[in-house]
Amino acid sequence: MKNNLQLDEQGRLRHFLTIEGLSRPLLTEILDTAESFAGVGERTVKKVPLLRGKVIANLFFETSTRTRTTFELAAKRLSADVLNLNISTSSTTKGETLLDTLRNLEAMQVDMFVVRHNESGSAHFIAQHAAPHVSVINAGDGRHAHPTQAMLDMFTIRRHKKDFSQLKVAIVGDLLHSRVARSQIAALNTLGVAEIRCIAPRTLMPGDIRSCGVHPYSNMEQGIRDADVVIMLRLQKERMQGAFIPSEHEYFRLFGLTGRRLELLHPEAIVMHPGPINRGVEMDSQVADGERSVILQQVTYGIAVRMAVMSLCMQSSDRGGEA
Amino acid sequence: MKNNLQLDEQGRLRHFLTIEGLSRPLLTEILDTAESFAGVGERTVKKVPLLRGKVIANLFFETSTRTRTTFELAAKRLSADVLNLNISTSSTTKGETLLDTLRNLEAMQVDMFVVRHNESGSAHFIAQHAAPHVSVINAGDGRHAHPTQAMLDMFTIRRHKKDFSQLKVAIVGDLLHSRVARSQIAALNTLGVAEIRCIAPRTLMPGDIRSCGVHPYSNMEQGIRDADVVIMLRLQKERMQGAFIPSEHEYFRLFGLTGRRLELLHPEAIVMHPGPINRGVEMDSQVADGERSVILQQVTYGIAVRMAVMSLCMQSSDRGGEA
Amino acid sequence: MKNNLQLDEQGRLRHFLTIEGLSRPLLTEILDTAESFAGVGERTVKKVPLLRGKVIANLFFETSTRTRTTFELAAKRLSADVLNLNISTSSTTKGETLLDTLRNLEAMQVDMFVVRHNESGSAHFIAQHAAPHVSVINAGDGRHAHPTQAMLDMFTIRRHKKDFSQLKVAIVGDLLHSRVARSQIAALNTLGVAEIRCIAPRTLMPGDIRSCGVHPYSNMEQGIRDADVVIMLRLQKERMQGAFIPSEHEYFRLFGLTGRRLELLHPEAIVMHPGPINRGVEMDSQVADGERSVILQQVTYGIAVRMAVMSLCMQSSDRGGEA
Repeated sequence: MKNNLQLDEQGRLRHFLTIEGLSRPLLTEILDTAESFAGVGERTVKKVPLLRGKVIANLFFETSTRTRTTFELAAKRLSADVLNLNISTSSTTKGETLLDTLRNLEAMQVDMFVVRHNESGSAHFIAQHAAPHVSVINAGDGRHAHPTQAMLDMFTIRRHKKDFSQLKVAIVGDLLHSRVARSQIAALNTLGVAEIRCIAPRTLMPGDIRSCGVHPYSNMEQGIRDADVVIMLRLQKERMQGAFIPSEHEYFRLFGLTGRRLELLHPEAIVMHPGPINRGVEMDSQVADGERSVILQQVTYGIAVRMAVMSLCMQSSDRGGEA
Repeated sequence: MKNNLQLDEQGRLRHFLTIEGLSRPLLTEILDTAESFAGVGERTVKKVPLLRGKVIANLFFETSTRTRTTFELAAKRLSADVLNLNISTSSTTKGETLLDTLRNLEAMQVDMFVVRHNESGSAHFIAQHAAPHVSVINAGDGRHAHPTQAMLDMFTIRRHKKDFSQLKVAIVGDLLHSRVARSQIAALNTLGVAEIRCIAPRTLMPGDIRSCGVHPYSNMEQGIRDADVVIMLRLQKERMQGAFIPSEHEYFRLFGLTGRRLELLHPEAIVMHPGPINRGVEMDSQVADGERSVILQQVTYGIAVRMAVMSLCMQSSDRGGEA
Repeated sequence: MKNNLQLDEQGRLRHFLTIEGLSRPLLTEILDTAESFAGVGERTVKKVPLLRGKVIANLFFETSTRTRTTFELAAKRLSADVLNLNISTSSTTKGETLLDTLRNLEAMQVDMFVVRHNESGSAHFIAQHAAPHVSVINAGDGRHAHPTQAMLDMFTIRRHKKDFSQLKVAIVGDLLHSRVARSQIAALNTLGVAEIRCIAPRTLMPGDIRSCGVHPYSNMEQGIRDADVVIMLRLQKERMQGAFIPSEHEYFRLFGLTGRRLELLHPEAIVMHPGPINRGVEMDSQVADGERSVILQQVTYGIAVRMAVMSLCMQSSDRGGEA
């Protein structure tokens, strides 16, 4: 997997596939650009003409109304035209057919693909084969990565904490299957946080997690103590009913974020969750709706971050087109 | 159910949930505003820039391509951006989850929700919990209300009859299950028509119908005699096959509008139907397509009325946001 | 079937339903107009304001994401508003109901219908009953016609070959069931190509094919010899498993386009296919992706051709509206 696939010859963002391989200045540029868009949603006219006349295709091989909606809104706020294409993976099981689909959309002069796929590496595959004028944004591929989610988390943290270098960040939940967690850990490391802790039942903790530069914990109380930021991962329904955890109730007892556990955190800690929350499983409602929670701000910032990634990639591919 | 939920502190329309509780001046303001939009659809450029940069989400928990299309067109003619979200009720059976969906869309800075739901009171529930900057429009909730349909009916009547005060209006059909009829009766009463008659088989007539200030009839000929306006309700397929009516054929024989029955009406009477028509059940084709029928005008006026309601609510919520 | 249904009183294009009955100057006007749009997709802002404020409804009674997408893109590049309506034919089996659907959309002041239907003649039926201000474009009806596909093929040929009059064109595949082939033959004849050859297994060759002014071949090598243009038709999956051909493998052996067979063509011949390709059935991948193939250019030109047809029809109906 070539990570420099994401960068053009001038080292600017061309595709946005994964956090890995991106430098701290580049992640900071994304956050700064998002900052410039953060006010657009509060204006009377929630639009900037930056991508007027560009066509962005939401290429969703896996249904996700929520994620699709955030990308659609981001594109529309940039004045782009949006095509929503839900493609059943059954009709494109052969890589060859996927490439034909890609070639066709390129021939229609689509400028950008936002790709969601249940197989890891799909967005890379598409980016590797994309025409020079096209950018690819990964909107979640299998267990691999969900980089815009990670960047909106970083944006949320920076808005509340300013400086990354002193932070203790705890990530709690199904680290084994989470594409979000992988992307978050990469981003936190690149941005230079002081300490990353990963908290999970042993069945949901990757064996090689230490190699990512994080501290694993199987005890919630120990893991979250004095944390400045707690990121709760979503527990997928299919894990709940499997052999990974004994029961939802037991999971909540051991790893759920409660008002009592909040007291263990740093007094100004923030609580994050990518949504949608399973209330009473990952956290109770008082925490979800409480003053420490920045969960809805994450959603708001997500639009600005996606606008930033889209506009940066489009700049690069435009420039590439002229070279 | 607080009806003043629909009004802001200055008594202006903030949500549009039900006709009940709205004053005659307010209904008249909606009709007058719709009048100003009625010409937009006939222009070469069918757009006004009034809601440019606003985001309107069609939140349909119940599929209705027809209704969704009219709201989508109204929003686009006002230059708003439209999000179409079809949400299966199975995924939001818990009120909690519905609220989380709402909070998420609010966090994405959606300005207005057009809500369609098969449960009565859903639009009220969402409006009660909506953020201050958000407006909710009821596009049909269970048996309860369908207020934009009622207002487009009022607009159609006013276009043809000018003055409400002298009118005899007959509503024919399944009054028991009809959300449209409830809204129509409320609007006709508020606008001060002379007489409202309700005509239905006994099995489809609500027991307390007199309390709405209407005259019930189980005989079609008696009910429609000298009427200025006849509103035929749509018979839902599920009623036709149930115990409510003996058969479609029998229903048509007793309550269907035929050329012969038209002769009983006032010579300048108009015939209305919310569509889609079951030809040969509610009326025969000669009536549906005849010169008394204003059924297709209702559709045209429906766009203008929805534009009116959307722009009035948006004005109010804007103002509320500044306060 | 009245073909002059397609023309207004001044002989200009009002609907676009079939190639049959259209004159060479009119087809040439479509190609010339498409030429003027061919550059729009390469601009930074891929839009012209020609149809701003117009509403185009994609009325698809048969799902075709690919075709729908090309029309949606063409409409958006012309700045029109687009309504996507997928209508199950089950709900409109009665012609009467289809007309009611049509009347309703007309009442909403939709300006143009792009119709896809699995029954031959559907687009004509809708055009016959459409209101004077409405244009109908056939996006494929049963086995009958797919005229925009044929015109994008003509555009592709003209771009590469300039002059139609000297050309030998071979069409290969399921001529019996192909709506594309019927439209292509009509267009090629009208534009005056020197020779049209049709190549198919006997089971897939219409009995009366000679009456179309073409030369039938059941031998691939003989049919394609010295051809300037080879148009491969798509073999529908349902034919492959039926009694029409012995097997995909056998079909490819007898009629598949291979590198070896390419050598039989004129040295500057081009290879076309409407897509999506069944690789290894109609042609092998070296041919599909090789230097003779103009398959992806067909897709690109398809947007320009659809923009041309839409804008020409809209001009006519506007003029009709003023008369």
